[in-house]
Order: sequence, then C-alpha cells, then structure tokens
Amino acid sequence: MSRTGASVLLDVLRSEGVRHVFGNPGSTELPLIDALAHADDLHYVLALQEASVVAMAEGYAMATGRPAFVNLHTMAGTGNGMGALTNARANGTPLVVTAGQADYGHIEVDPLLSGDLQSLARPVTKWSHELRLTRELGTIVRRAFHDAASPPAGPVFVSLPMSMLDEEGDWTVPPASRLERASGPAALDALVDLVRETPAGSLALVLGDEAAARGWAPLVALAEALGAPVFGSPLHGRAVFPPSHPLWQGGLGMAATAIRAQLAPFRRVLLLGGQAFMVYPFTDGSPLPDGCELVHVAGEPLQLGRAHATVLGVLADPGTAAAALAARLA
Amino acid sequence: MSRTGASVLLDVLRSEGVRHVFGNPGSTELPLIDALAHADDLHYVLALQEASVVAMAEGYAMATGRPAFVNLHTMAGTGNGMGALTNARANGTPLVVTAGQADYGHIEVDPLLSGDLQSLARPVTKWSHELRLTRELGTIVRRAFHDAASPPAGPVFVSLPMSMLDEEGDWTVPPASRLERASGPAALDALVDLVRETPAGSLALVLGDEAAARGWAPLVALAEALGAPVFGSPLHGRAVFPPSHPLWQGGLGMAATAIRAQLAPFRRVLLLGGQAFMVYPFTDGSPLPDGCELVHVAGEPLQLGRAHATVLGVLADPGTAAAALAARLA
Amino acid sequence: MSRTGASVLLDVLRSEGVRHVFGNPGSTELPLIDALAHADDLHYVLALQEASVVAMAEGYAMATGRPAFVNLHTMAGTGNGMGALTNARANGTPLVVTAGQADYGHIEVDPLLSGDLQSLARPVTKWSHELRLTRELGTIVRRAFHDAASPPAGPVFVSLPMSMLDEEGDWTVPPASRLERASGPAALDALVDLVRETPAGSLALVLGDEAAARGWAPLVALAEALGAPVFGSPLHGRAVFPPSHPLWQGGLGMAATAIRAQLAPFRRVLLLGGQAFMVYPFTDGSPLPDGCELVHVAGEPLQLGRAHATVLGVLADPGTAAAALAARLA
Amino acid sequence: MSRTGASVLLDVLRSEGVRHVFGNPGSTELPLIDALAHADDLHYVLALQEASVVAMAEGYAMATGRPAFVNLHTMAGTGNGMGALTNARANGTPLVVTAGQADYGHIEVDPLLSGDLQSLARPVTKWSHELRLTRELGTIVRRAFHDAASPPAGPVFVSLPMSMLDEEGDWTVPPASRLERASGPAALDALVDLVRETPAGSLALVLGDEAAARGWAPLVALAEALGAPVFGSPLHGRAVFPPSHPLWQGGLGMAATAIRAQLAPFRRVLLLGGQAFMVYPFTDGSPLPDGCELVHVAGEPLQLGRAHATVLGVLADPGTAAAALAARLA
Repeated sequence: MSRTGASVLLDVLRSEGVRHVFGNPGSTELPLIDALAHADDLHYVLALQEASVVAMAEGYAMATGRPAFVNLHTMAGTGNGMGALTNARANGTPLVVTAGQADYGHIEVDPLLSGDLQSLARPVTKWSHELRLTRELGTIVRRAFHDAASPPAGPVFVSLPMSMLDEEGDWTVPPASRLERASGPAALDALVDLVRETPAGSLALVLGDEAAARGWAPLVALAEALGAPVFGSPLHGRAVFPPSHPLWQGGLGMAATAIRAQLAPFRRVLLLGGQAFMVYPFTDGSPLPDGCELVHVAGEPLQLGRAHATVLGVLADPGTAAAALAARLA
Repeated sequence: MSRTGASVLLDVLRSEGVRHVFGNPGSTELPLIDALAHADDLHYVLALQEASVVAMAEGYAMATGRPAFVNLHTMAGTGNGMGALTNARANGTPLVVTAGQADYGHIEVDPLLSGDLQSLARPVTKWSHELRLTRELGTIVRRAFHDAASPPAGPVFVSLPMSMLDEEGDWTVPPASRLERASGPAALDALVDLVRETPAGSLALVLGDEAAARGWAPLVALAEALGAPVFGSPLHGRAVFPPSHPLWQGGLGMAATAIRAQLAPFRRVLLLGGQAFMVYPFTDGSPLPDGCELVHVAGEPLQLGRAHATVLGVLADPGTAAAALAARLA
Repeated sequence: MSRTGASVLLDVLRSEGVRHVFGNPGSTELPLIDALAHADDLHYVLALQEASVVAMAEGYAMATGRPAFVNLHTMAGTGNGMGALTNARANGTPLVVTAGQADYGHIEVDPLLSGDLQSLARPVTKWSHELRLTRELGTIVRRAFHDAASPPAGPVFVSLPMSMLDEEGDWTVPPASRLERASGPAALDALVDLVRETPAGSLALVLGDEAAARGWAPLVALAEALGAPVFGSPLHGRAVFPPSHPLWQGGLGMAATAIRAQLAPFRRVLLLGGQAFMVYPFTDGSPLPDGCELVHVAGEPLQLGRAHATVLGVLADPGTAAAALAARLA
Repeated sequence: MSRTGASVLLDVLRSEGVRHVFGNPGSTELPLIDALAHADDLHYVLALQEASVVAMAEGYAMATGRPAFVNLHTMAGTGNGMGALTNARANGTPLVVTAGQADYGHIEVDPLLSGDLQSLARPVTKWSHELRLTRELGTIVRRAFHDAASPPAGPVFVSLPMSMLDEEGDWTVPPASRLERASGPAALDALVDLVRETPAGSLALVLGDEAAARGWAPLVALAEALGAPVFGSPLHGRAVFPPSHPLWQGGLGMAATAIRAQLAPFRRVLLLGGQAFMVYPFTDGSPLPDGCELVHVAGEPLQLGRAHATVLGVLADPGTAAAALAARLA
C-alpha cells in the first residue's frame, strides 16, 4: 500500500498512546501539520515560544507517565527549547522531540532552515538521530518512544527531513512492542505464561553474549526445563552454552535470509541478551520468519524492541532471569 | 596525611581488584610509572602499539569479569587505541582507560602533548572526563570503575593531568562500594539482611523522584514495615510520599551541613531512587554523618556509588524493590 | 547518463589531482575496490595497519602539497587510524579520509560493520560527514578536498555507505573549482583579468552580509568601476549597499528558479562574502543559469567552492578586496 | 598583587572595549554581579528570558562591530539562549557568552546547578571552554574575544566556575593585543613601520611550519632585507629555512626558560606562521623575555594572540606576507 511518511508517523504515535502533539511549527514542519489536519484523534497544542512548548509537554508526560510528543521548528526552534530540555533531562521526563529538517531535494547546498539538528540536540537528549531514509521512519520513531521511557527516562530527538514526510511509498508501520522495565515478579509471570502457552517444539532459545555473564548453569537449566533447541546469536563473541550439549545448535547464520531459514520451524524465539539480530551482509527481509514472535530479556534497556517488534521484552539481567525462569518452569 | 595524587590512584586500583596495568607510556604518564615502581603488587604489562595494549586488556577483562585498567600516552596514544576501543565497546567489555594530560602549570598556552583528550575519547566510551582537581581523583576513578562495569558494560576514559598525580595534599581515598547489578534474589536477600541487622530507630528512608514511579503504596508499605522515618531527597521534584503520613519528615535540606544535621541520629540511610545527594550551595563536608552508611536502590546504574561510598547498592526499579522488600519484612 | 556513485567518486579524485589511494579495505569498501580495478590511473597503496596507512598518506601530502586520499575500513579501521590523524591535524596536513558504511538497505537494524562513523572521526578532523544521498557524492567529496586544503589545512572525513557507491543513477560530477587561498597580488591579478575580459553588461555583482563589514564605500567604488548591477545575496541580513544607488537591484529572490531568472542576463557573477546561495524552498536546479560562471571572494575559506563550482575563488576580506579591485580597475 | 578572578575578568572586558554586560543572572553568577556593583563603567542590561538577552547582545554587536559580552545562568539559562545563538552563529555575529558553573569546592558530587556547560554550548559556538584554573582566566577570556571576532565571526562560550571568580591570588591581566584581520595594505604598512623602527640587531625572525608553504625564497628575502637572525619555532616539523644560510640559528629550544634565554638579546620577535610557542616540559614563566614584543603573521586567525600578548598580529598567508614585506623593505 502506498502511503506517505507522515501517515506512518501518525500511526506510530497512535500505537504509542499519543493523543496530543505539543509544538510550534514553521514551514519545515508543514507536512506534519497537513497530516494532522486529517487526524481528529490527535490534538495539536500550540505555544508561541518553545520554552513553553517543552514545559507543557513535560508536565503532561509527568502526569500521564508516558512519553509526550513534541514538534519544534528546525534549528532555532529546537535551540529555544533547550533550556526546558535540560530540565526534562535532569527530571528524567520521557519526551520524543522532533523538528523538521530542510527538503533533502537540495540538502547539499545548505538551504535556508537546514542545519545539523542532530548535533544541536545531542547535549540535552539521550539519543539524537536524523532520519536517513523514509523507510526507517517507523522503526526509528518507535525506538525513540522506547528509549525515552527506558531508565533513566528522558528526552530523545529525531530530525525529520520534510521531504521524507511527504514521500509516498510502500512503507510499513512496525507493530508496537510490549516492554516491561520494572523487572519484578509481574514481568517474570508474563514470561512464564508466554513460554507455557507455546506449543511443544515451537520455541527456540537464542543466546547473546551477555547471557553467559553468570555462567552456563542457569542457561542449561532453562534450556532443559524448556526442552528447546539453543542457538547462539549471530556473531556472538563468547562461548554461551556447552558445545557438546544435545540441545546446542550452534550459532545462527549472519544474513537475514539464513537466520530466517534456521528459525522457520519456530513460532516463538526467546532471546536472552545480545543484539537482536546483528546481520551481515544485506539480504532482503527480516531475520524473523513471518508470524514468529520475539520474546527478549536484556539487561540493557536500549536493546529491547530496538529493531524488531517484540511481543514481550523484559529488562533484567539475562542470567538471573534464566535461573528464575528455570526454577518456575521446573 | 599528605600524599600524592598518584598514591590515591594506586589505592583505588587496589581496592577495585586491579593487579595489572596495561599500557604504553610517554612522558606525561611518568608520574604513574614512578608510583608503580614502588608498588610490587601492581604489574605493568607493556605493549609497543596501543592497539595491542587495549586488546590485551580486553581479553584480560573478559577472562576475569572485572574492569581492566589501561594507561595510554596522551592524544596520539589514545588515538591509536581507538580501533580496539570500538571493539571493546561493541563487545561490552569493561575497561578503565586513562591517559596523561600535559602539566596544568602551563596548560593555557597549549604545550606539547596537550589536547582535548576528553572529546577525543568520547565516541568510543560510555563516559569521558578530565580531572578538574586533584581532590576529585579518588571519587572520579572509583566512578570510572563503577560505570565501566554497569550494564551495558564498556570502556570509560579519564584524562589525568600529570601535575595532579604529582601534587601532594591531604587527599583521601573514598572507600569501595558494594554494587549488585544482577537485581535477583541474592541482592534482595542482602538488602533484607542489612535492614534487619540495623538497630531499631537508626535507619532513615530517603526517597528520590524515581521512587514514586509505581505510586506511593509500596513506599508506604516499606516505611511501615521498617518503622523508619521518611525523608524526601534534597530538591525532589515530585510528591514521593503521603504528606500527612506520620512517618513523613519532609524533604531534606539542601546544603551538606543541613542534611548531615538531619541524618545525625541515623546509622544507616536507605535511599530509593534519586540523586544522592544533590546539594546546594557549597558547604564543607559530606551530607552523610560520619559513620552513617548508605544503602541505595536505583534503576539507573550510573547513580550507584556515584559520589558517595555505598555499603550496598542494588540496581533495581525502586518501587518494585520497595514492594518486594516490604513483603519480605512483613 | 546512468553511472555508479563509485564512478563519480573516481572522477572527482582525478580532477583533484589524486593519483594514489592509501588504504586498508574490508568488505564495506569493496565497491570502491571494484571501481579501482578498472582505473589504471589511480594506484592503490596498501598498508596492513591503519596507523601506517595514514602516516604514508600524510608524508605524501606533505611532499606534494596537495590533499592525499585515504580509505579505511568502517569503525575499527577508522579508529586504528586516529592516532596518526591527531598528528596530521596538529601538523596541518590536508587529508581526505573516507570509510565504508554498512549497506543502507538495512541500516536501521544496526547491521555488522555499521556505526556512527561521523561522530567517531569528528575529534580528529576539521569536518566529518556521512553521505545522505548518492546525489550529493560529487558535491561533498569536492567540498572535502576544498576544506582539507583551506587554512588551517588538516584532515576531513566522509563516510561512504557502500550501497551508495553501487547505486546507479543520473549522477553528475561537479566541475572543479579554482581556489586561491594565499590572498596576495597574484590572486588580485587573476580577479582583475577575469573582470576585464568579461563583456560589458554581462557581469553582475552580488553582495553577502560580510561584504559590508568595512562599510559601503569600497563596494560602491567597485560597482561604479565595473558599471555592474548590484544584487544583495538571498536573505542577506544587513544593509549592504546604498538602497537609492542607481546600480542597486535589491536582493535576489530565494528559490533557485527565481535567482536563475534574475541572473539569466549575465555571463559571470562576482560574489563578495555571503553564502552562495542560501535558497528556499526547494525548487529544481541550480540558482546559477547554465553557462554563468561564479567568481567568489570570501573571508571564510570553507565558503569557497562549497556548493557550486567556482571559476575563481579568492580567500580575502571582501571589503578590502573590493577596495583593491576598484583601485586597479579605476 | 592579590585580587579576585572577577576583577581580572572586568579588566579584560574594559580593555576589549566592553561597556555593557547583557545577562539574566542566577546564584552561580553572583560573583560577577557583586564585582559589577563596584564597576560604574560597565552597565548591566537585564532581560528576563535568555532569548531576549542574546538577541539584544547580537543587535548591539552588529551595531558596534565589536564582540558583545553575555552572561547567562548555568545549564537552563544557556539552554534558553541557544535558539538565538543559532541565529548569531548563522549571522556571523561576534559574541562572548559566559555562564556560571557550580562551586568547584564540591563539583565532584554533581551539585545543583552543575552540568556539562561546555558540551551544551558547543553546537552553537565556534569554541566552548570551561575554566580549568583561575590563573588562566585572563588568557582565556582574551582568547574568547579574539576568536569571536576572527573570520568567520560568531559566538564563543566560556564556563566560569563561581569559586574561581571569588578566588583571590596573584593573578595578572594579560595586555590587549592588536590584531589586523583584513589582510590589506594597512596591515602591511603597520608591519613595515614596526620593523623599521626596531633598532638594528634587536629583531629576531622566528619561522613556524606554515611559513615555508610557499618555499624558502620569500623567507630568505625577508631575512636578508631585515638582516635579522632566523630561528625555527620550537618543535617545527618541516625544514623552514636553508640550514647553511649564515642567518640561520637553528630551532628554538623547547622549555620556556630555554627560549627566553635564546631570545634575551632581542626587543622584538617577528613570528611567521607556527604556534607561538609550543613549549615542553613545564618551566616557569613566559618564553618571551620581559619587554620583548611579539609581532605575528599567521594564516589561521585563531593562532593570533592566542596565548601571548601580541603588539601586532596580522591575518595573512605567511609566505605571501614575507614576500610583500621583503619587497617593501628592499
């Protein structure tokens, strides 16, 4: 289905629970404003100086406990907001801040309203990024919401070249992920439920480098409790499982096509630690087979839901979680 | 006791379990080399190109599971090590990397072997810092070890002006902290033990902003299970406890002297979330009374042991940990 | 004509006088290696560690007085070269350093050999950039050669996503510019010659903000000596010429199409100061009419030849140059 | 004479022609406010939001043609000013922007109102620096005025730890420098006058690496026209003068004491190119003998007056200037 980048953006906002856009637009933000004109479920809250825009959004985020979405006008507008953003960062308030970049149709001649937005916003944000391709819009804005909410919560920034919001193409909206960051009993219960409801033989265990930081024992216990085949993540750098264990399948391949073939028999993948999935070289499509769900436990919050939709992502030390999960399943 | 900055550095290394210094020194690193000449328990491992220095240290850190200590030669030596440091960062290997900065006696004239080491190392490290004062050496190097080991583990960098290593003064070595980052049952057991062994009336509960992210209920349950008076951390920005609850004491003062007076009756402080302690304005001394121990639960690993020695620091969501602790104590 | 990005790169190298490529390639650099296999006039000089690659290139640049071209392997290779690059920067040696970025076909999933090359190289370079579009390759690599050679000379960095070098399209190679940076009598002579040989009525004078820093008098003297109509550059922020003077035409329009129409009668444009040309919004094509040559005098070397081919660019204070030129023409 | 850091700051402001301080202070700026209370010749211009503070200062700098001085309140105030600072940078308006940093008496515990001001201001400034020592205050603020005014003019930033402004010591105020950046005939005339009035035998010529970029001939011509002995700058990296020429004295030594001894016979030093002076290791005092004046020609504006007071600094290509000077003296 052909659609604009802006329509992808709005769909990600909706699926992240956004109902208000806080902003002060200029011409580089018009593609977003145009799209919002047709979106009755997203309300624009205007302020006439960016210190106020950001402050309103911060209050809203504090009150709702969810990241608020902000849209500022290129370099000068983002600059005006940077005092309030130092506060939001100090307060640990989750904000997804965006600004319009000049049209990529002539970006190499330094047009009016162009500039290095990514570097400008870096000192007051956890992560700052300029879209490289319209195709990555959905993944990147999704990641922005994840990163803003991850501990320590805070503002993130995405620069949106105006031509990408207008560009039509066969863009997809990545599904939302469910991320549990409190690492308490509720998250473990949800993991146990997911694993138990997975039909026998349809679960694969994938281990990244971090998984073995507490040794092999909890991983072996978990694999045996699950009766699941065990793969190393692509390009893992450490020995993560006893190589002679009957459940050990070796490392996953590198290219997305190769990984997809190896995981084809499975309906769910339980990934402990690791980058999900570090592929090479470029081959088309996802490393995950169609319909195969990703369940992920990582100690580093920015890895959860980073590149692939995650049916359940849990922030926890992978080895510790493996031991707890094995104990519950035994 | 008058001592050199270098002797403080060596004592922090010892207390962090360091036995090997990996390096390739030049003249700006001589104060460290001189100090090591008298330290039979610290062994210098020399390589003649910095790619090898960092690679050896990375292998050692992987094998031991502890941060390895590296000392490079100013801008050019640090630059040479940056390829291996991109690997260490990608691998999540904890390294404390240092380099000698030119003598601060004439730093403002850009002497030979001076340069912006802090910015150079920033792209390949989690944290990059140049000592501002000899006084902060112990706190900063201790923090470097903590940050390197915190998830996601990786390299950190500290620039050491050579004149500070030689400077004599009444410098102190901050005690080592015990940090539990696996957030599993063992950490909770240790918390329970510490709290139970604290004599009645000698424990204070201090709540930072993050503590209330899951609401007041788990905090009230914990305070009541402990029977401990509850303070807000200095300058907390959100309501963290029911203001009419009999255990609520209000927020701590801002100056270190004021906080120290408020905490004088207590032998231990249990801090949930929050920055420990954000003081203002400058007054002499620590906010913690002499002999008062800090126990800290935070969801952001870089806050644990950051500025003050911590008898037990646990990486966990504060609200979730409060609920678990209250249940165990009930 | 359809051609690859790599063929544009090689043509820019040739026109900048490059005969040797110093490098140590990996897979992300293969599109360049493939293209070089068919380029008998460009010789690859291989070294097996990047410290040596950069050091060889630096010696070659010192000996020839021209920027040397370097190609390294993604993050780790660029990192390895950063010690030698700190030297090159301290020595003021002009180098154009490049590295291959991972395929943009899947860049949003953080594939192997991807990373933030632009930030990595920033501390040791004057300018660091990742290509955003294959279309900008010619302009950006041309700019890299200009910036490397401008005072203070030094290394610059361009990240080359491998998919852009392979991409076929209707790419053009921007013509080389002639830049005079010694600001001595020879540059003034060349300016006088160019102006004198321009047929009457076919020269336009365009003034940017910097032009008026020494007042209007030298600009009026020059305009009257030339008998040329005078335009303000697009979006100039200061009054640059007496508004009632008969030669004053007002400011140029903003869109490239508008500027092109205003400059259509002229064969040459003499631009003093200013950004050449800050356009808005996007319209197709260059602000300069086909066949119209740009002559540029600027006090900021990075502006010369930045976005548009320049038949003569002179590094000099614009007001001072205007006075000298008027005196010579009088 | 014992004096405060703040008094040094005010004396540098006066000698740079400052009559107005534009600001919006908080507590970390009080040492400056206190000092200004006794300075009737410096007027404070207050605005209540930093966007206005910076905009007023920019207008004043445009009107006067000199750098305007701005004082903002730590992280949040500097952040608020960053929109207007992106404008000032785009406009090339010279501003010296400062902000108060928290007291260094407890900086290592991250007190309220501390933060990484230097990194915050970097994206919108040409140069960003935090004072490392009260001793460097005079040199650094002087440099800030030079850098702001150098082409391309723009904002610079200096973070002022409040404890340094209050610190008393034997601080000195470096004399103002006279810098000519228009590189036209007036600057050459001034150079000729200075050289001609220097008594025979009391002028030394010092050559840095850049001096020889146009070959030895103009340098030999100048040395012979002057009849002056010729030194290489300390640690010069290229052959800058014919080694068998009778006027060649070899390179200067490295330590300040050594250079001072070599230059003791001279009343003036004419330095072409080069860093003035790159010393090593630390020895006390200036490389220039008492009463010996520095005359400097450099192609890189940031080198002029950078570390040492300069009786005349000229922005020009050194080789070209040498040829012109030799011709005038012949």
